[in-house]
Amino acid sequence: MSSGTGTEAFAAVDVIVRKRDGGELSDAQIDWVIDAYTRGVVAHEQMAALAMAVLLNGMTRREISRWTNAMIASGERLDFTGLRHPTADKHSTGGVGDKITLPLAPLVATFGVAVPQLSGRGLGHTGGTLDKLESIPGWRAGLSTSEMTAQLDDVGAVICAAGAGLAPADRLLYALRDVTGTVESIPLIASSIMSKKIAEGTGTLVLDVKVGTGAFMKTEDSARELARTMVDLGTDAGVHTVALLTDMSTPLGLTAGNALEVRESLEVLAGGGPPDVVELTVALAREMLAGAGLPDVDPAGALADGRAMDTWRRMITAQGGDPSAGLPVARETHTLLAPADGVLVRLDALAVGVAAWRLGAGRARKEDTVQAAAGIEIHAKPGAVVRGGEPLLTLHTDTPGRFPAALADLADAITVAPAGSQPPHRPLIIDRIV
Amino acid sequence: MSSGTGTEAFAAVDVIVRKRDGGELSDAQIDWVIDAYTRGVVAHEQMAALAMAVLLNGMTRREISRWTNAMIASGERLDFTGLRHPTADKHSTGGVGDKITLPLAPLVATFGVAVPQLSGRGLGHTGGTLDKLESIPGWRAGLSTSEMTAQLDDVGAVICAAGAGLAPADRLLYALRDVTGTVESIPLIASSIMSKKIAEGTGTLVLDVKVGTGAFMKTEDSARELARTMVDLGTDAGVHTVALLTDMSTPLGLTAGNALEVRESLEVLAGGGPPDVVELTVALAREMLAGAGLPDVDPAGALADGRAMDTWRRMITAQGGDPSAGLPVARETHTLLAPADGVLVRLDALAVGVAAWRLGAGRARKEDTVQAAAGIEIHAKPGAVVRGGEPLLTLHTDTPGRFPAALADLADAITVAPAGSQPPHRPLIIDRIV
Repeated sequence: MSSGTGTEAFAAVDVIVRKRDGGELSDAQIDWVIDAYTRGVVAHEQMAALAMAVLLNGMTRREISRWTNAMIASGERLDFTGLRHPTADKHSTGGVGDKITLPLAPLVATFGVAVPQLSGRGLGHTGGTLDKLESIPGWRAGLSTSEMTAQLDDVGAVICAAGAGLAPADRLLYALRDVTGTVESIPLIASSIMSKKIAEGTGTLVLDVKVGTGAFMKTEDSARELARTMVDLGTDAGVHTVALLTDMSTPLGLTAGNALEVRESLEVLAGGGPPDVVELTVALAREMLAGAGLPDVDPAGALADGRAMDTWRRMITAQGGDPSAGLPVARETHTLLAPADGVLVRLDALAVGVAAWRLGAGRARKEDTVQAAAGIEIHAKPGAVVRGGEPLLTLHTDTPGRFPAALADLADAITVAPAGSQPPHRPLIIDRIV
Repeated sequence: MSSGTGTEAFAAVDVIVRKRDGGELSDAQIDWVIDAYTRGVVAHEQMAALAMAVLLNGMTRREISRWTNAMIASGERLDFTGLRHPTADKHSTGGVGDKITLPLAPLVATFGVAVPQLSGRGLGHTGGTLDKLESIPGWRAGLSTSEMTAQLDDVGAVICAAGAGLAPADRLLYALRDVTGTVESIPLIASSIMSKKIAEGTGTLVLDVKVGTGAFMKTEDSARELARTMVDLGTDAGVHTVALLTDMSTPLGLTAGNALEVRESLEVLAGGGPPDVVELTVALAREMLAGAGLPDVDPAGALADGRAMDTWRRMITAQGGDPSAGLPVARETHTLLAPADGVLVRLDALAVGVAAWRLGAGRARKEDTVQAAAGIEIHAKPGAVVRGGEPLLTLHTDTPGRFPAALADLADAITVAPAGSQPPHRPLIIDRIV
């Protein structure tokens, strides 16, 4: 027997037990449990038990799709069909040194495709786009829906904080999963990402699903499964969705840290910058533009001739930022030297990410603040010939007491092999999934 | 990376993830997580996720033993070594019509073995011993430890409410499991029962592990595994522990309901009563007495000659009850008749239990009250020859509006087969596990 459920359609325990015992949840059960959790009728401990059962027993494509729709239905849904531009957005599953959104959004907008990039805060070693932009003096992340729409119409690109109205069920569930060991579930990850992106109302969505030590997905198989699941969810919801599987075994570009990554993004927007950052920015831009009906334009040209930089400056200015202002510089630096002559064959993404986080670039808890200037500059990437004693990494922080812990994180991060060695071949873009 | 744990030995997420991923928890992790949950440092949602992971991934014998000890260590431990009597207790996993504790405790005490029976409230269809005794006018369940010890020394038997000091971690976890679909885990069930029984300080413990539709364990395999786990836990803790596997496919005796079961217990104490109730009472008494060093006494004789009844009267009187007072009688009854001539081959325990619960004999929530007089009287047990139209069951309640729902529960509970049929052979005592 179940205890009285009052006017509720289901009892939470019955839904939990069904998933626990390997069953499929019905559409009505999924709709109810997400709605009731948002209303506070399903308690956190009940949702935690259900999340663990989902993590261990999985969900079918139908269940994941319904779960995602229920999370979208828990809040408002933006509608950009009234814009004079088509819309395209990108989501990355997060990687070390992943500043691609910064040059990408203005680059795509340069071609008349609106980019409504609603972001969350970074938690953990991969940092957050909003944290990076907040190192620009004056820039503010919080916009109202009408401000956002106006900026999309005017500038074409907006990167701002996702409002509380979008998929509030996901907001609750995300915080719960973080403290209950239920993050690492592909159905829950995919539905969390896609509920927000579908609610955001973009017409095209390009997913950058990272794989490697510095990524959430450590294996290509799991990254591929996540990409497949998300592409299916987007397609089912009528969003033109493509995923690129990309390498995250070593940091992207030559910086990890908020202001450091803005500086590198500016180099890319000025037509320079590290080749891997440029390659990925252009590849993702091509996908977004093609999805929005422009398969034949050349994004690289808009980096070379300064058009993307112009859009960047307008985008930053529109949100109160001063694109000409100097960026914060850390109080202290510490340089890590190459241990020997040879070839750098490994620079581990996770270790660099954790060390940057430790130096102050990231937060352990939602309420922590980040240091704008903290992070790591990379002087040599895998494949580079190095000489013993030359700088490999420069660590930046306002709190030098953190150097020892960051150096400890980096102790096993670097492998220098004898001259003539080569790092394992890892293409940056591993696969494309549609 | 894990978020800051302050002065805590572990982070809850790390413990959850280890069990989630199929690992074994260390002794230190188990000690910490139980203690930290009791202190409120591990949140309910974290323990819920861990409980689901335990349910789905199991625990080793070492883990279960440590988990049990950690729950014991969360509270006080009673010590009856100062008593002039050896101690023995019984625990039943719960069944429909299971009133055995009522005649058993005074019967065993009659032979100079002290019975400290600390009970919980019944939740669900199997009812609770305290609820049954509270149908006796004046009887009170709450005793201080010193009152309990004095009564054990004087009368030899006490049945009372377990104090809040005993295994408080289990109290928290039990309530949590009830709402999170994490009840049905043998490691969690075994450690919950045994932590309380070991903390209670009994020297001998006899377990009545029931199997069948009316029991928590529906299959003999699962009941056997639970019995084995509990016997091992008791033995490891230095308690002389024996388990009987007993049948719960049909109700025990001829009554289910609080005052109705007290009345039937009085018949047993008067030397009569249904044969199955007498058989099980005597078998469990033999085990308790043997464990306490009296293998050769004859419990049945003390039922026949009134000695056990004398102890009962002293036990009830000592707790404020009037053993001569009339018991409550329900305002309304409804009789269910045999549908045809033949042999009653099935009277389903679960259906009778749920119907009795529905009539008011049990509670759905901890805070519900029970009706002392509600329940079901059984006029024929499986194997009985019946005539169409003769009474099979009498339903008792103070709220006759509940008859239709109770009758619906009973709709498929009864099978009358043609004359000459026999019910499946099911011995009451299936096995003995030491």
